[in-house]
Amino acid sequence: MSDEFSRIERYFAPLAGAEGLGLKDDAALFRPPVGRELILTVDQMNEGVHFLPNDAPDLVARKLLRRNLSDLAAMGAEPLGYLLTTALPKSVSEDWLRLFAEGLRADQEEFGIKLFGGDSSSSLTQISLTATLIGHVAPAAALRRDGASPGDEIWVTGTIGDAALGLRARRGELQNVPAFLIERSLLPTPRLNLELANVASATIDISDGLVQDLGHICKASGVDAVLYSHLVPASPEAASFGDTMLEARLTDGDDYELLVTVPPEKTGALIAACGTLQITKIGKLERGTGKVEVWDRAGKTLQFSRPGWSHF
Amino acid sequence: MSDEFSRIERYFAPLAGAEGLGLKDDAALFRPPVGRELILTVDQMNEGVHFLPNDAPDLVARKLLRRNLSDLAAMGAEPLGYLLTTALPKSVSEDWLRLFAEGLRADQEEFGIKLFGGDSSSSLTQISLTATLIGHVAPAAALRRDGASPGDEIWVTGTIGDAALGLRARRGELQNVPAFLIERSLLPTPRLNLELANVASATIDISDGLVQDLGHICKASGVDAVLYSHLVPASPEAASFGDTMLEARLTDGDDYELLVTVPPEKTGALIAACGTLQITKIGKLERGTGKVEVWDRAGKTLQFSRPGWSHF
Repeated sequence: MSDEFSRIERYFAPLAGAEGLGLKDDAALFRPPVGRELILTVDQMNEGVHFLPNDAPDLVARKLLRRNLSDLAAMGAEPLGYLLTTALPKSVSEDWLRLFAEGLRADQEEFGIKLFGGDSSSSLTQISLTATLIGHVAPAAALRRDGASPGDEIWVTGTIGDAALGLRARRGELQNVPAFLIERSLLPTPRLNLELANVASATIDISDGLVQDLGHICKASGVDAVLYSHLVPASPEAASFGDTMLEARLTDGDDYELLVTVPPEKTGALIAACGTLQITKIGKLERGTGKVEVWDRAGKTLQFSRPGWSHF
Repeated sequence: MSDEFSRIERYFAPLAGAEGLGLKDDAALFRPPVGRELILTVDQMNEGVHFLPNDAPDLVARKLLRRNLSDLAAMGAEPLGYLLTTALPKSVSEDWLRLFAEGLRADQEEFGIKLFGGDSSSSLTQISLTATLIGHVAPAAALRRDGASPGDEIWVTGTIGDAALGLRARRGELQNVPAFLIERSLLPTPRLNLELANVASATIDISDGLVQDLGHICKASGVDAVLYSHLVPASPEAASFGDTMLEARLTDGDDYELLVTVPPEKTGALIAACGTLQITKIGKLERGTGKVEVWDRAGKTLQFSRPGWSHF
């Protein structure tokens, strides 16, 4: 593999915005948009944890950006740019790097963002990647986790559990999995630009699992939730696996759909804000202290072995 | 080790500023200082590459922050806060985490910065850490690498090569190394608050090695440099090793001193700006294309096996 500096010059400098100063300086220089608040978020992709060694490098790059873009979406922010760190073992090939940079470029164009800077380094064994995303939002318009109230409805965008089944296929744990589910697990779609600022009482993106991420809203807002498992939207491809995969679908992360709570009188505004994007009511909030109950169609409480993904 | 969420709550939430929203949200919410430009920088500390497995966790934390603070210093910026990512293998103990967090707290207090947010994850083998630092600077006052001109003088703060010798001691490659040198390698001092905005023509912090980092200024500015090896300031502790360690001192990084170029008429202003901090003239810039020559006392050109540290 090429050394750090030729790597930066060849693969990353062409991706840099003016803020990156050609990636020749120690840091990025950035004039924040006047009268806006900034949103800063950082997420990792570590080999063997967040991606598999044989995953296509361009998709690893795009998922790295999209996981962070999803965090911006959950705050109601517009993306501007990002910082990137790469820690690569010697075994990484030029081809891997070239494809990785192509993936970054593809999503920079898709989401209108630029590389502001970063740090390129080595690691002894696995690949470690981080992206720090910078976004902006109107003053006091940022969506939060702590604004939900008893009586609010729980809604979710898109379909839930596709990535969980796709991941199992990629790991060889599940057979006959449609390509759509594998693609959903490799390349999520951040739900940006939904304009939920005066609509949602709380939002979170589903990265750790529906039940657990709903729990984060409940704890932050001081409410309990009842989630109706039969209302949780499945894609036709995921539905074909039936209830055998229900726990996986509800407790595995990586769908990067938005979980939104709204007071009932704002249901219409929520549906309007989502336009052609599927949005489904899946439960309700009650007085409480952060507990999530999952009910099936018959009103029976379901018990899962864990609510979602947590790094030990 | 505790799981991700109790880890965040126990060790990291107490370090968070208001921008961190209690580390309960997807991202940090940050109101940029009015009329200032932002400086963003990110650096990594990977186990086995940037620190040794037995290094004290509090010093690892502090060096992680200080390497980034040094990048802010090289741009003339004031620090505000940081985002942190941790990727930890299962083998990491609660004690390691507690000490790591104590190190963060110590340097937050020392440098007046707060934790804005981050991401906590697992890794299969080594510890990987990143910090994204956010700083600010007056408009158009950021120091750059590309402003140096032929005729400028080359100056450096502090003493050079202490960390190189300290690292060799920590690796068991060099014997009878004074504790001062080991401390310099574990806990560098970022040279913040020097007010070089209308003084320096270019600046860089020495992280990859004096010769190589000078080369970065030369390439960015389109000049050549002559560096006088006998003028490069050594601490008494480093000087005791004599010329046998000269190449290591000049080509190893991690000192985090500032390399500053100034037009001769600004020499006085530079010395005044440095106050009680040692600052030493070590060379001059000439017309050229980015080349660095190192001369000894007799005017003989020294050849080194490499100009500095580069990740393969």
